Amino acid sequence: MTDILPDQSEQKRLDELYADFAEAGLIPLWTQRDDLMPMTPRPAAVPHVWRWARLLPIAERSGQLVPVGRGGERRAMALSNPGLPGLPYATPTLWAAIQYLGPREVAPSHRHSQGAFRFVVDGEGVWTNVDGDAVAMRRGDLLLTPSWAFHEHQNVTDRPMTWIDGLDIPLVSGLDAGFFEFGPDELSTRETPGRSRGERLWGHPGLRPISRPDQPNSPLAAYRWVHTDAALTAQLELESEGFAGVIEPGHAGIRFSNPTTGRDALVTIRTEMRRLRAGARTTPVRSVGSAVWQVFEGEAVATVGDKAFEISKGDLFAVPSWCPVTIAAGSQVDLFRFSDEPVYEALGLARTSRGEPQ
Amino acid sequence: MTDILPDQSEQKRLDELYADFAEAGLIPLWTQRDDLMPMTPRPAAVPHVWRWARLLPIAERSGQLVPVGRGGERRAMALSNPGLPGLPYATPTLWAAIQYLGPREVAPSHRHSQGAFRFVVDGEGVWTNVDGDAVAMRRGDLLLTPSWAFHEHQNVTDRPMTWIDGLDIPLVSGLDAGFFEFGPDELSTRETPGRSRGERLWGHPGLRPISRPDQPNSPLAAYRWVHTDAALTAQLELESEGFAGVIEPGHAGIRFSNPTTGRDALVTIRTEMRRLRAGARTTPVRSVGSAVWQVFEGEAVATVGDKAFEISKGDLFAVPSWCPVTIAAGSQVDLFRFSDEPVYEALGLARTSRGEPQ
Amino acid sequence: MTDILPDQSEQKRLDELYADFAEAGLIPLWTQRDDLMPMTPRPAAVPHVWRWARLLPIAERSGQLVPVGRGGERRAMALSNPGLPGLPYATPTLWAAIQYLGPREVAPSHRHSQGAFRFVVDGEGVWTNVDGDAVAMRRGDLLLTPSWAFHEHQNVTDRPMTWIDGLDIPLVSGLDAGFFEFGPDELSTRETPGRSRGERLWGHPGLRPISRPDQPNSPLAAYRWVHTDAALTAQLELESEGFAGVIEPGHAGIRFSNPTTGRDALVTIRTEMRRLRAGARTTPVRSVGSAVWQVFEGEAVATVGDKAFEISKGDLFAVPSWCPVTIAAGSQVDLFRFSDEPVYEALGLARTSRGEPQ
Amino acid sequence: MTDILPDQSEQKRLDELYADFAEAGLIPLWTQRDDLMPMTPRPAAVPHVWRWARLLPIAERSGQLVPVGRGGERRAMALSNPGLPGLPYATPTLWAAIQYLGPREVAPSHRHSQGAFRFVVDGEGVWTNVDGDAVAMRRGDLLLTPSWAFHEHQNVTDRPMTWIDGLDIPLVSGLDAGFFEFGPDELSTRETPGRSRGERLWGHPGLRPISRPDQPNSPLAAYRWVHTDAALTAQLELESEGFAGVIEPGHAGIRFSNPTTGRDALVTIRTEMRRLRAGARTTPVRSVGSAVWQVFEGEAVATVGDKAFEISKGDLFAVPSWCPVTIAAGSQVDLFRFSDEPVYEALGLARTSRGEPQ
Repeated sequence: MTDILPDQSEQKRLDELYADFAEAGLIPLWTQRDDLMPMTPRPAAVPHVWRWARLLPIAERSGQLVPVGRGGERRAMALSNPGLPGLPYATPTLWAAIQYLGPREVAPSHRHSQGAFRFVVDGEGVWTNVDGDAVAMRRGDLLLTPSWAFHEHQNVTDRPMTWIDGLDIPLVSGLDAGFFEFGPDELSTRETPGRSRGERLWGHPGLRPISRPDQPNSPLAAYRWVHTDAALTAQLELESEGFAGVIEPGHAGIRFSNPTTGRDALVTIRTEMRRLRAGARTTPVRSVGSAVWQVFEGEAVATVGDKAFEISKGDLFAVPSWCPVTIAAGSQVDLFRFSDEPVYEALGLARTSRGEPQ
Repeated sequence: MTDILPDQSEQKRLDELYADFAEAGLIPLWTQRDDLMPMTPRPAAVPHVWRWARLLPIAERSGQLVPVGRGGERRAMALSNPGLPGLPYATPTLWAAIQYLGPREVAPSHRHSQGAFRFVVDGEGVWTNVDGDAVAMRRGDLLLTPSWAFHEHQNVTDRPMTWIDGLDIPLVSGLDAGFFEFGPDELSTRETPGRSRGERLWGHPGLRPISRPDQPNSPLAAYRWVHTDAALTAQLELESEGFAGVIEPGHAGIRFSNPTTGRDALVTIRTEMRRLRAGARTTPVRSVGSAVWQVFEGEAVATVGDKAFEISKGDLFAVPSWCPVTIAAGSQVDLFRFSDEPVYEALGLARTSRGEPQ
Repeated sequence: MTDILPDQSEQKRLDELYADFAEAGLIPLWTQRDDLMPMTPRPAAVPHVWRWARLLPIAERSGQLVPVGRGGERRAMALSNPGLPGLPYATPTLWAAIQYLGPREVAPSHRHSQGAFRFVVDGEGVWTNVDGDAVAMRRGDLLLTPSWAFHEHQNVTDRPMTWIDGLDIPLVSGLDAGFFEFGPDELSTRETPGRSRGERLWGHPGLRPISRPDQPNSPLAAYRWVHTDAALTAQLELESEGFAGVIEPGHAGIRFSNPTTGRDALVTIRTEMRRLRAGARTTPVRSVGSAVWQVFEGEAVATVGDKAFEISKGDLFAVPSWCPVTIAAGSQVDLFRFSDEPVYEALGLARTSRGEPQ
Repeated sequence: MTDILPDQSEQKRLDELYADFAEAGLIPLWTQRDDLMPMTPRPAAVPHVWRWARLLPIAERSGQLVPVGRGGERRAMALSNPGLPGLPYATPTLWAAIQYLGPREVAPSHRHSQGAFRFVVDGEGVWTNVDGDAVAMRRGDLLLTPSWAFHEHQNVTDRPMTWIDGLDIPLVSGLDAGFFEFGPDELSTRETPGRSRGERLWGHPGLRPISRPDQPNSPLAAYRWVHTDAALTAQLELESEGFAGVIEPGHAGIRFSNPTTGRDALVTIRTEMRRLRAGARTTPVRSVGSAVWQVFEGEAVATVGDKAFEISKGDLFAVPSWCPVTIAAGSQVDLFRFSDEPVYEALGLARTSRGEPQ
């Protein structure tokens, strides 16, 4: 802050002052301002890719070696961002994990403040019971377990099943806002219906049960691939016919939403599916907030900041805050994406910039 | 206000005063208070039923005798509430009409501030083009033409088609809020797709196109019977299984909603479909605001205030403000209902009372 | 709709058809479309001025001849718009009346769905008790009696007092939404504090009592002239200093607002005070919805549609929907204005156009 | 998760698995679940008090030894919670600092995403220019510098001045959402008005300038002690008279609010002033989220979790998440309080419990 060297007596007084800061529980701003308040976001998290081909065998080995049950609760392995060493966080706000449930296994009931979803890249045979409502998990489906809903999983088949979990664990942890409760040891239900009660009540386009009030999180327990696929297909067809609908040329996208409010399916987590035509390339976008993407089908190159990742089915990658991201599709490619954007929108902190960073 | 008879000179002064009121453009409150501000709503509109069997032949005769075209714009015959003589209003806020479009006929393009919907009890073959989007009209469907959207109808078949129109004409007229504009004389499109673009973009449960912002009226151009029927069926099945969902025992109901907000499909008009099991009877409800019901299928007795109407397919009846209504289902019965309740909710004037009026 | 004259037999069938329409309770749209749905709002209400110099003596004569008490409830004389003959309505949605309370008189307690305010051009000495909270009424003050709050007035002086009442009576009447209840015959309080409890709790800029929740209508019982005057003065001073704040050059304005939401003080009625510098002239504005203005102080020419009114203290004038209005200030002029704009905003029907109508 | 000891070969495979987790960038949930998702919030931050008598002399010494200027920007010393060692954070979301500006000193212009306020326990003579609007800082005042507003401070007197700064630096840092920009080196204004333009426009109870739209943060630049004091005084007087208003017996409180929305003055920070009668004791309250309190005047004992602090003028203390807090007033005591509660409310994570924890 000054170019003038302090003389010796001044330096001594300064040293004493800094010692007294420490003793008094004070830390001066002027030595840290740039770190505390950088010119633009300077995330510790880094762009990173986790390969499905690498994760899947490890998950399977866990299935053989690690039991699932009360205490640990879930056989879930969290993606740890290399920029956040030692922390099981894909980004500073988002938890992403691969979960593995062996044949006939059960993961016990609990609930927590943290909001959660499951997304299934492959497989089926598990039902997640959400407040006693049995929700089938199948390829391409998004399943919700909103804040404070009891949930448990059961595999009713002789084959294991794997999926990804997304939660706001880091956010809730940083805010010291988490509550957790164990549920009953017995399964709430052993039913295995094709459609959950949540879907039967809420899964009709634009139709609300008159008897049900608004809810902060979506009451639609599951978003099925058949609908997601149809919606993306329609957008690209409309584009071909010359009509609006896609995000940009060759780039379709839907957001999973809460039918009682039209807002995000979960209060704190945005969930979306994108489809790119083969050869399409998205405009670079940088946003405040972080995201995790997973390839559902197809091949692409994702450029995140100064890194380029060749990605294919199941691969996951993290996008830190204010880091530009572009996807270039090799084949037609479907990508599941989740982010913390609703948090920034709610707090007046959202910022987005499109186009090549200057 | 006083029992004491005024003496002659006072009476003379009073007479002069009242004459001066008139001359000055004043009207005293004290002679009108009870009419202006009754203890409870005292609607001029009355409970009334219009028989489909009576309306349909008249609509057909109009089709033979009255051309449809620019100026009159629509071959629509409005239900006129007997309590509102000379006014083409089903209730003080709602317009309900039967519209008839002959074989190969076209109703020309226009737009207006008034929000509108169509509901089809029977028939098909007409497409309504809403801002250039061709929307098929079929039995059981609800079709929207929101405020200020250009719309036109064309019958592409050799058979006539009939449906009901619902609008907020009386409300908008009472508020002096209406604008109207003629569209081009040529049809915007002659396409006859099975699904409109609005449905292709928005008709997926819980899925929003990322590219589209919130809108005050629903962008989902059509609510198809197949979905409505499925939603009602599911509610009754859930009830049989012991789960929540119905409005009350034996009484299922869905509200047509705007997927961008979760609110009513139209800003000023609530639209709903109810299904009663055979033998079910709804709790009497009285609400501020008025409604029109139409039987879609089945037979029932509707008790509206002190009148009981035996109703069957196509019959329409009006429920004035604060008038209790109960439906007793003979067979299983499906009823379409529209009302002005969103207006009262927006203005802090909503009130509802359930159970037998005391 | 057709230039071809029907032949005799067709004419006969048409006559029969129209007769059957009437008998069946139907009214065809095509004969009325232009009246029902005009190209732009075609209000029956007309621009009109009521002169304070004419109203005041009539109010005084009423004070001598007409008692105030239970049944008639208030000695209020409503401004009747000449375009709405026989109706005590200043506009299709707004009631405006001059109320007169004689020395030591009391107007008894009641409550109603209709929202109300009082505005005082001159005088003092009356307290209006709102749910038992005694609110002094003084020159320049706006006093609220929101929907369903019990209220009563008492004059504690030996002089009469006059003020204007504004209510949404026509709106609530047209919507059949009004409830009314008589209160106790005894005054709820005889206190005459300088500040009401509502003001003591809420009358601090930007400060909310932590213990109080949001309310649809403002809990601030009174908006005092001293604050209104200061706010208007500040806007004009800021303008002189080169800073933003005024509506347009020479034209300051404040809106009375609900401190729990920042919205209008009353759900259905907008209330504002405007101040124009001597010589200033407002841009013509036409809005959907209607308004009533009253001169609080000063002289101006108000041009409403094609009528020009020279107005001075106490004069009231009505502005129908979509009718352009301009004020040209002779002296510095203060104008109180109330309108139904919140209704249109809530219902998606608001439209405003600035500048000379084309 | 299991009581059965793995045999040697299993242990080896487990070791390999854990090694592969690390190599693959995975961290298992089951070893960390309890830390990641505790049963109730388990904040690292601890209850802590900082003594004004200790802070003030250190601030003064900084004034002699440390220049203020571009780069360090402010002579602000942050309260560092002992539970968050090395971090300049009073709580996990809130920054609180004592700032010192020497005679005739200037702190240069900058702006940032972080929202900020100043609260003055003692002194005057500094103006903070917020987007060019000079805002006097005086004892008892709360001054806002909302997100992205340029601000700079100048001391126009020959005496130093000290105050506290509150910001959401930790929150914004944890979310990687911060942008920062240096302003011009020259002061935007050297004016020293008694009232800022923000106050002149917005500082009138319940009155909004018609020309100004809603804003996420309050446009009222300053909340003056004279109003805060009057509001608290009124609440206690109303209590004495038997009327509602206080939070609980002997405990008055106001929230600084945004007049355009009625919500918190800053999007992310709640700011309040409490007054307790001598002898009053607040009900223990535990809330999700953290807070910092400062005694403005008087003496009390604050019990935070299991610690009891005797506090007097200027003392600050931190309340971690879900930690019960009670204040017992020795004398009449005024306390300024700020917290992150709006964040939790916006994210659906708010929880509060009143009464003795069970």
